[in-house]
Amino acid sequence: MGDAPTSREHLLIAFYQDNSRLLEAREKFPQLDISTVKLEFGAPIPSELARKATYIVTLNNLPKVEDAENIKLIHFISAGLDHSLHNPIFKETAIPLTSSSGIHGPPIAEWTVMNWLVASRKYAHAYENQKEHQWRKDVDKHFESIHDQVGKKVGILGYGSIGRQIGRVAHALGMTVHAYTASPRPTPSSRRDTGFIVPGTGDAEGTIPVSWHHGTDKESIHKFLSLGFDHLVIALPLTPQTTRFIGAEEFALLSANALPKHPKPYITNISRGKVLDQDALIASLESGELGGAALDVTDPEPLPADHPLWDAPNVQISPHVSSLGVEYFSRTLDIFKENLGRLQKGENLINEFQRGKGY
Amino acid sequence: MGDAPTSREHLLIAFYQDNSRLLEAREKFPQLDISTVKLEFGAPIPSELARKATYIVTLNNLPKVEDAENIKLIHFISAGLDHSLHNPIFKETAIPLTSSSGIHGPPIAEWTVMNWLVASRKYAHAYENQKEHQWRKDVDKHFESIHDQVGKKVGILGYGSIGRQIGRVAHALGMTVHAYTASPRPTPSSRRDTGFIVPGTGDAEGTIPVSWHHGTDKESIHKFLSLGFDHLVIALPLTPQTTRFIGAEEFALLSANALPKHPKPYITNISRGKVLDQDALIASLESGELGGAALDVTDPEPLPADHPLWDAPNVQISPHVSSLGVEYFSRTLDIFKENLGRLQKGENLINEFQRGKGY
Repeated sequence: MGDAPTSREHLLIAFYQDNSRLLEAREKFPQLDISTVKLEFGAPIPSELARKATYIVTLNNLPKVEDAENIKLIHFISAGLDHSLHNPIFKETAIPLTSSSGIHGPPIAEWTVMNWLVASRKYAHAYENQKEHQWRKDVDKHFESIHDQVGKKVGILGYGSIGRQIGRVAHALGMTVHAYTASPRPTPSSRRDTGFIVPGTGDAEGTIPVSWHHGTDKESIHKFLSLGFDHLVIALPLTPQTTRFIGAEEFALLSANALPKHPKPYITNISRGKVLDQDALIASLESGELGGAALDVTDPEPLPADHPLWDAPNVQISPHVSSLGVEYFSRTLDIFKENLGRLQKGENLINEFQRGKGY
Repeated sequence: MGDAPTSREHLLIAFYQDNSRLLEAREKFPQLDISTVKLEFGAPIPSELARKATYIVTLNNLPKVEDAENIKLIHFISAGLDHSLHNPIFKETAIPLTSSSGIHGPPIAEWTVMNWLVASRKYAHAYENQKEHQWRKDVDKHFESIHDQVGKKVGILGYGSIGRQIGRVAHALGMTVHAYTASPRPTPSSRRDTGFIVPGTGDAEGTIPVSWHHGTDKESIHKFLSLGFDHLVIALPLTPQTTRFIGAEEFALLSANALPKHPKPYITNISRGKVLDQDALIASLESGELGGAALDVTDPEPLPADHPLWDAPNVQISPHVSSLGVEYFSRTLDIFKENLGRLQKGENLINEFQRGKGY
């Protein structure tokens, strides 16, 4: 009675920025004691804090192995864990490790569709005209140059949680979706999304694409790019195999196969800058081989002020922010919440890192 | 044999602009003789042309009644026929008259969703930063102020072909859709869209809304606006009843019922400027009662350069162009094609004007 120590479990939130956004954890987990610590990017968690913790939510602040005995689960607030794979916690412990894969679909799909529509509907004209207080209703120009997305074809390289939400919205716009993955997905179960899905979004069963394609070799990707796309979305992870995967030859193929009366193909890159041959992209935009590009990622980042990509024709650039937003932390905590329940019931965790496979 | 006159039917296309875009009719209707005439807006079709015609496709150039004996169908390339209702063809003949209602959904839905995302993701920052070649990755600002649309609620006033396509895309984005119509829609069949639907778009069965509401009185609309919307879309026809239907009181209700932690409500008007009390809108934007507005229509049009609406906070204005695009004429001809087939089979026409009802 009274001041006896509680046996409540303890959640430690360790992050390099102000933690206040994560404090909604208090509302989501009233059964847990919660403390936060602000640590430099990648710095280890001090022993006295780590030893009190039952659970850790972090970007890349990890405990030392000798402090981790009582820790039942470490949840990462990033989708990939590549920044921490070298840490002994990965190799020398069996603590379950979970990622936030799956929460990036909605904001990145919104960023993608926004850029498509800003480009296709020439939003910059309306924006500039409004700044000048000018009502410029050029009916003929609209009839000649504003295309909508109905009946347009999008090829999505990498049909994971992000590609699926893009596919979902594209389908609603009246487009046809064609999926490309590294490994074959011939059966309904192989097409299922088994990771975390933000409720009300995505393509859980993989039923949206009208065709599925696969391969890691040039021949396979070239066959895919010859299908006649209006849009190519690059949502691949960056690996040695995907570095500069899409370059001059691929842009030429896309362009040569563009459908009659359709605008030239539009590239969307929400992966990593190095997946593209950026110089080849600039050349294809300048020659008109491509109709435009939306790039949330560049090579290098930050893109230097004197880089020619800034002024390439019909390119729209943002500074690697497409996944960020108010809802981010709430969703990463939703995954932790789901796994807390599964852990207590002894069920398989969602988004769990497979130590054997390395992802 | 030889030079005997053909018995081919004759399609006359009469329009106030250059007709070249309509000449794809030649591809769609190889069985018809086709001629075009450029006439002033509303001018009658000259007798010698009208008398040769079996079918007319027009915006608002009509034959005189005495020249219309052989005409089997007149197809209008606008959604509403209000510009021509006074014409004797409507009252003194029984010629089937069809509208292009239904083709505006995709472009207007794209315009709407583009504006939502441009506003929610603060696209103007990215646009201005790119113009300055500045990579300004302000992570904290994004985490604090960029909301996505998942779990947001949209109320759609007027759930016709345009409202339905907006609803379809909103649903794909993860939003919940609430429909409002003038008359009650209690049964599945009453919720069906019986007009022309651009293939691959819309909500034919009316299954997307999670709730349906109706009424033309203040009490009904106020009950609807109290549901706690993030977005209100105005897609009503302008009638005496809907003139200034949404004003200060309605904006206050929307704002008072905004959900906790959500941005203040955002207004989208793709109907007519006069459906809103525009001064009240400006006041609500200035006070922060509303979060923003996308307006394709204003009062008056064109909006004068010195009008305060241009600079109202978080307003995005375009010059009544949201429905226009390359695909417009092709789709209006698709409706005519569908009806040509129905006419020959003696079936009910799609989008037929009901002389008794006046629409």
